[in-house]
Amino acid sequence: MSFQKLDELCRRLQAFDHALAILGADEATHMAPGGGEARAEAMSTLAGMAHRQSTAPEIGDWIAAAEAEDLNAEEKAAVAEFRRHYTNLTCLPSDFVERQTRTRMRSEQLWREMRERGDWAGFLPALEGVIDLAREEAHMRAEALDLAPYDALMEQYDPGNRAAEITPVFGELKNFLVDFVPRALEAQARRLERQPLRALSGSYPVERQRELGLSMMAAVGFDLTRGSLSVSHHPFCGGVPTDVRITTRYKTGEFLSSLMGILHETGHALYEQNLPARWAHWPLGKARGMAIHESQSLFVEKQIGRNPAFWEWALPVVENHLGEKWSQDEILAHVHHVEPGLIRVDADEVTYPLHVILRFELEQELISGTLEARDLPEAWDARMRAYLGLSTIDTPQDGPMQDVHWPSAAFGYFPSYTLGAMIAAQQWAAIEKDMPDVNAQIAAGDFEAVNAWRRDRIWSQGSRWSTPELIERATGEPLNAAHFLRHLEARYGA
Amino acid sequence: MSFQKLDELCRRLQAFDHALAILGADEATHMAPGGGEARAEAMSTLAGMAHRQSTAPEIGDWIAAAEAEDLNAEEKAAVAEFRRHYTNLTCLPSDFVERQTRTRMRSEQLWREMRERGDWAGFLPALEGVIDLAREEAHMRAEALDLAPYDALMEQYDPGNRAAEITPVFGELKNFLVDFVPRALEAQARRLERQPLRALSGSYPVERQRELGLSMMAAVGFDLTRGSLSVSHHPFCGGVPTDVRITTRYKTGEFLSSLMGILHETGHALYEQNLPARWAHWPLGKARGMAIHESQSLFVEKQIGRNPAFWEWALPVVENHLGEKWSQDEILAHVHHVEPGLIRVDADEVTYPLHVILRFELEQELISGTLEARDLPEAWDARMRAYLGLSTIDTPQDGPMQDVHWPSAAFGYFPSYTLGAMIAAQQWAAIEKDMPDVNAQIAAGDFEAVNAWRRDRIWSQGSRWSTPELIERATGEPLNAAHFLRHLEARYGA
Repeated sequence: MSFQKLDELCRRLQAFDHALAILGADEATHMAPGGGEARAEAMSTLAGMAHRQSTAPEIGDWIAAAEAEDLNAEEKAAVAEFRRHYTNLTCLPSDFVERQTRTRMRSEQLWREMRERGDWAGFLPALEGVIDLAREEAHMRAEALDLAPYDALMEQYDPGNRAAEITPVFGELKNFLVDFVPRALEAQARRLERQPLRALSGSYPVERQRELGLSMMAAVGFDLTRGSLSVSHHPFCGGVPTDVRITTRYKTGEFLSSLMGILHETGHALYEQNLPARWAHWPLGKARGMAIHESQSLFVEKQIGRNPAFWEWALPVVENHLGEKWSQDEILAHVHHVEPGLIRVDADEVTYPLHVILRFELEQELISGTLEARDLPEAWDARMRAYLGLSTIDTPQDGPMQDVHWPSAAFGYFPSYTLGAMIAAQQWAAIEKDMPDVNAQIAAGDFEAVNAWRRDRIWSQGSRWSTPELIERATGEPLNAAHFLRHLEARYGA
Repeated sequence: MSFQKLDELCRRLQAFDHALAILGADEATHMAPGGGEARAEAMSTLAGMAHRQSTAPEIGDWIAAAEAEDLNAEEKAAVAEFRRHYTNLTCLPSDFVERQTRTRMRSEQLWREMRERGDWAGFLPALEGVIDLAREEAHMRAEALDLAPYDALMEQYDPGNRAAEITPVFGELKNFLVDFVPRALEAQARRLERQPLRALSGSYPVERQRELGLSMMAAVGFDLTRGSLSVSHHPFCGGVPTDVRITTRYKTGEFLSSLMGILHETGHALYEQNLPARWAHWPLGKARGMAIHESQSLFVEKQIGRNPAFWEWALPVVENHLGEKWSQDEILAHVHHVEPGLIRVDADEVTYPLHVILRFELEQELISGTLEARDLPEAWDARMRAYLGLSTIDTPQDGPMQDVHWPSAAFGYFPSYTLGAMIAAQQWAAIEKDMPDVNAQIAAGDFEAVNAWRRDRIWSQGSRWSTPELIERATGEPLNAAHFLRHLEARYGA
């Protein structure tokens, strides 16, 4: 039976996935510094074997045969998602993949070096090479998937997302934000005039911050028997659903960046820990995509963790662990701090979308060929000035060289971040409609009902639906910018 | 070129080895408790793939072709060791291996349960099944390797070791020890009469013990950029040569068991960290076998770590970390404590060999068929009484049920422990002959010359020689019990 063959293949591939996920998390947390070269060789060999096994031509026959078999609805969905996955994996010729991998690795190495030095001219030829190949890739994917080129790239990260649908939503958001950012800054200035910012005391031992983080993780639903918290240079959520590894980085001078980071990664972890276990080895059992994943992490960080109601419950917990008493207003002044800046990863939730929209617009032009890499610094700077009133023309390391995405040929990924923020707000609105007392629950430290809602509508669904389908099924309507705008207005508008 | 094909195969297999080693170490140190089932499934799937890839029939042709190629001496050695490895891996039919794996897993599970209850009768049928298969295995291996059945089993752990050569050496050791143990106990009683045992203070914080352990690891040669120290329930040395994971377990009431354990595992780690890196992916580049490995760990634990000269250097280090001042005599009374007991893993270096010789004798009889499993409790008890004056007839959990080796079908492994102790002593004697001031070096905390000697003669040799060849090349003579007897006599005889 072909379904059975696919099931066995999935189990073999799952073993590779498991190994690569744990080896990857281990590399960032527990590996000895001298172990890197052997680790990289082992991981790339395993990844290569997994790729060969998952793209073998006979699999196409198994899928076709399985589609003709008498399967129940869930099995049918599993085969359909397998086919989607297989098509995306096999639509590029392997010599192209090898060429692209080499180009991307060289470009990433060069990028690290040249960004350090702010040397745009030194990096440009490598980026041009990557973009040439990305255009080629987009056209091959477009052909195989019968999609527009940029849509075919996005399809890898968020199945079903289309630029034609995202562009108007992002447009609405951009128009709103260009006016709203100054307004939010004025409102913030007025608040700070009434009550000046209380400085953090600057003495937060790592072990106490860790205990605080663990207690908040557990409170919001992280299953500590199936995951852990470690330290790494760049925070991440990795591992496998039965052993989710989240990480943070502590500064003893302040506790909020680590705590908010932990809540963010906990959001990713909740999704992973609550995926449908019986389909764990099939693509059907994996998380839907990057926008949905980001919506789950941002939900815990922003809708829960930066919600005033949350701090009614959280302030005594902080006091208990860190020995410091804060008032709501004092802590919210930190938690809701808005400050336009050049760097996307440091941005607050008000200005962040403008960073993403800038990239979304530019990368579409790069892929379509209406923009060339050599013109990026000017194009970037022009939009940066228009959207945030800032200039990067003299500091390319803070402009088009700031992110790893383009140097590593990940075009079509950026929109996921802001789609995630919008989906999170839309999810909150839907929850509030179903449970009008949700803020009271959160103020009481009770996250059960919120998690049950999300488990039922999102987490348990795995990859059963496309991203837009999942949004509509979970929240009752297609992606709608209004919820996010209302969220920003309520939190930052006055 | 077939040598090249083997080289590529070795690289693929190395990726599996790497993954399995790190996943195994991670499981015991950092894995979330709920991650066990998925981890076991991933590891057994990877191990199965590795086994299939390493036993493919075409490999036999590649080896034969490589043997006919124009290779240098080292490459020839690599191919020869590859053949030995391949022959040992492929000499059992795969349906037998599957049957044995199932039997062994059931037997191990039952053993854990029945040992807990001391239920010999409940465990016996499972052990009988394992022994039946072990006899079958020994005969198949014997046929393939042209060895005696028990030798063919030992060949998996220590290539070249033969019962006919070990038996007289163990006989000499046994005859010595049966008289020596009471004498050592009398000598100990006299010492304790002169100076009563000073109690440990009982308050040793884990973090300080860890720092002490790390500083001693580094001092005796462990490269902390290519390895680490963690905590696990059972101490082990795992990981890969570029990232060696050693573990310990702390008791806050005393510090010596953890410290001695760390030195022991550090001995294993030094061997791994100093294997020939360019052959890391070939069998030639792996450690020789269990007896040599144990000789390297025991050397660091016993020849260095329990050496009075070592404590001249170590006592100030202990004082520095734990804030406790000890005299040489006070610490040596703990470090050289002798006490006959029922449990092998708790035994001191004087009584340990008798535990091993007992098992070596009994397991040969079990394999040859002159002893049946049902008669084990009586046979065990008779030897226990003869060798150590202790009885296990009413506590089978402390007798033939105490070790995992037989329940898991590892016959031929036990001699490695005591061979390791003897090789360590013989190595020390050879070093002392080459460097008469070795004790002065150790008393000064200088382990460079000792490590250089071992790196040159043992570690860098990988699997180039059989176990007896390596012993003779490194120490200038075949295995000779006299060195170990002299060591015991000098340390415990008066």
